[in-house]
Amino acid sequence: MIVSRAVTDNLSKASWIRRMFEEGARLKQERGADKVFDFTLGNPEIEPPPAVLAAARRVLESTAPHLHAYMPNAGHVKVREAIAGRLRVSTGLPYTANHVLMTVGAGAALNTVLKALLDPGDEVLTVAPFFAEYTFYAENHGGKLIVVPPRADLTPDVAKLEAAITPRTRAILVNSPNNPSGVIYPGETFVEIEAMLARAARPIVLVSDEPYRALVFDGVAVPEVPPLVRRSIVATSWSKSLAIPGERIGYLAFSPRLPEAAELFEACTFTSRVLGFVNAPALWQWVVAEVGDQVIDVGPYREKRDLMYEGLTRIGYQCVKPQGAFYVFPKTPIPDDVAFVRLLAEEGVLTVPGSGFGMPGHIRISLTVERDTVVRALPGFERAFKKARG
Amino acid sequence: MIVSRAVTDNLSKASWIRRMFEEGARLKQERGADKVFDFTLGNPEIEPPPAVLAAARRVLESTAPHLHAYMPNAGHVKVREAIAGRLRVSTGLPYTANHVLMTVGAGAALNTVLKALLDPGDEVLTVAPFFAEYTFYAENHGGKLIVVPPRADLTPDVAKLEAAITPRTRAILVNSPNNPSGVIYPGETFVEIEAMLARAARPIVLVSDEPYRALVFDGVAVPEVPPLVRRSIVATSWSKSLAIPGERIGYLAFSPRLPEAAELFEACTFTSRVLGFVNAPALWQWVVAEVGDQVIDVGPYREKRDLMYEGLTRIGYQCVKPQGAFYVFPKTPIPDDVAFVRLLAEEGVLTVPGSGFGMPGHIRISLTVERDTVVRALPGFERAFKKARG
Repeated sequence: MIVSRAVTDNLSKASWIRRMFEEGARLKQERGADKVFDFTLGNPEIEPPPAVLAAARRVLESTAPHLHAYMPNAGHVKVREAIAGRLRVSTGLPYTANHVLMTVGAGAALNTVLKALLDPGDEVLTVAPFFAEYTFYAENHGGKLIVVPPRADLTPDVAKLEAAITPRTRAILVNSPNNPSGVIYPGETFVEIEAMLARAARPIVLVSDEPYRALVFDGVAVPEVPPLVRRSIVATSWSKSLAIPGERIGYLAFSPRLPEAAELFEACTFTSRVLGFVNAPALWQWVVAEVGDQVIDVGPYREKRDLMYEGLTRIGYQCVKPQGAFYVFPKTPIPDDVAFVRLLAEEGVLTVPGSGFGMPGHIRISLTVERDTVVRALPGFERAFKKARG
Repeated sequence: MIVSRAVTDNLSKASWIRRMFEEGARLKQERGADKVFDFTLGNPEIEPPPAVLAAARRVLESTAPHLHAYMPNAGHVKVREAIAGRLRVSTGLPYTANHVLMTVGAGAALNTVLKALLDPGDEVLTVAPFFAEYTFYAENHGGKLIVVPPRADLTPDVAKLEAAITPRTRAILVNSPNNPSGVIYPGETFVEIEAMLARAARPIVLVSDEPYRALVFDGVAVPEVPPLVRRSIVATSWSKSLAIPGERIGYLAFSPRLPEAAELFEACTFTSRVLGFVNAPALWQWVVAEVGDQVIDVGPYREKRDLMYEGLTRIGYQCVKPQGAFYVFPKTPIPDDVAFVRLLAEEGVLTVPGSGFGMPGHIRISLTVERDTVVRALPGFERAFKKARG
């Protein structure tokens, strides 16, 4: 055996997910791709706004020197200043270029900050349901992810979070709008978290992972975290808001209210470099500096959310109504979500079990599909529901 | 203290490098930037070939769908097929798309493969002088870098490599053309390494880090490693050959002769994902598939190499003549390279001590400067040499 034990273990744990993907591929082969409704992938099917592609073309046409060269590992100062300017407006806090570190997407941002925070054995708290990769991100740096159950509305139960704090807790990692639930954590949650952190025996940082911030419906506002929580760091990307997930561009923003902001900025500049990110792709840095406040049309996602949410609740599924992101996360009619995912697959409907997100008894339905796919899949959702209840 | 002990330790170890950078900045402020000759940074000052920027513009103008969307974590299959096709030609080995994993540059490639290979306490051998980041890349994944001294010509001493093998040795990591020495390891070295690996008690992989492969002078050919070493993996990037280091695009190529190629491809697809790279930037994948075999004009680098190498040897410096990359790595006239770097700085000449590359008694001179800078700096190199000898 040549692959490390740690990776071998992770791959074998992940093998049931792979088996399900293979089952999906087999189904498509057997029945024809148009008879299989694949709700497993969070891959935006829409194209970037034309202004984004136009901005990228302008960078490539520019005769300015060194646009594609190395730059400070934290990113181009002008780009970071542009992001800081937007953050000053949205938060009212005095962000500067030295509070912003450009990253190779949000996954890079999270690994960069967790490596800066964690020594072996340190703990990161998160709230179920959570983005499955968090487990790996913590373990990459010797840390351990501790998952805390949510309230019934799938928002954080801050009393339970506080009970989970130990002397090894270094960070709390939250994701709102949430993947997989689409739930937006209310401002009140962060007020409670702030009070809790103020009572903690040593500094604990709140890391707010916000790639879905711009994808919200019904006029709901996503609370800005830094004005509410003193020790906060925002990690995000433009993958969803500009529909460029393949391009890997995001940032870490260290709150000006964070007493250790300068120390963490320096540490993360180092960890981003030595983890091999080196810097965020230069071209896309220039692009987001110019048009990073654009947002794709969220109308189609809202429409699909409405269709799926209303369709499922009409059938009898219990579900918290998602207010953002592009997922629906209903309860399964039987407690065994993996068994229910198999029932759905028999109907040609592919979903992901909630167990993968620390929340058994649920399934994640990704809406990055055609509207028509939602309409045509609902009868399958109904038949599986009845079979399970039958 | 909020930053992890591990990162704090690394930052404090690195602080003398930072002090030297600060000293350089102070010098430029004091004397004027035109009186300071900065040979510390390996940042190509040239622009990408026009065909590269044109290919990128074509991607942005294309109406094909999903060009900027997620793709398989290993990269677009068509892109990997294009790279595999080039590797078939250059090596004569039957590479396919499943032997090629697109990465966020070579630093990402190395972290991706080291995480797949190393469990805590495992060892990676390398040969001095070596790219300083290797230490961090190994330690990121719980590994340890073991540095083996080279022969007098700065090529690997394979007998010493073999003596350094322990039951924890998992990989040998070499870099040719070499940063910092510019030396190209000859084919014979790899023949010896192959014989050594064949004698080893358990599989050890040779990781060949080759970002400077295309930057060679005097018609010298860089030996292809996979035909010579059965268990080999190539890590590389287009940072230097296309002068796009800010864009972060490279690959890992698992040799078709490597018995564990499929296993390592799968493991690295996983580690690339969970380390937060997710995938190599989509736009640049399409670009390198099309024009990745272009190479910048190496003429100016050769000219600067000649000027610097001849200038230094005329003064009395001892130096192996670099045949590739864009560095010169002379011996210092006194054993204490850090002290000599300070003497040079007094002359306005900024260089990096060889200690940083596992090779005290040397300095690294990076030629990513104007030709004129080389000419104007040589008197400073001469004065410092005489002072040191004086």
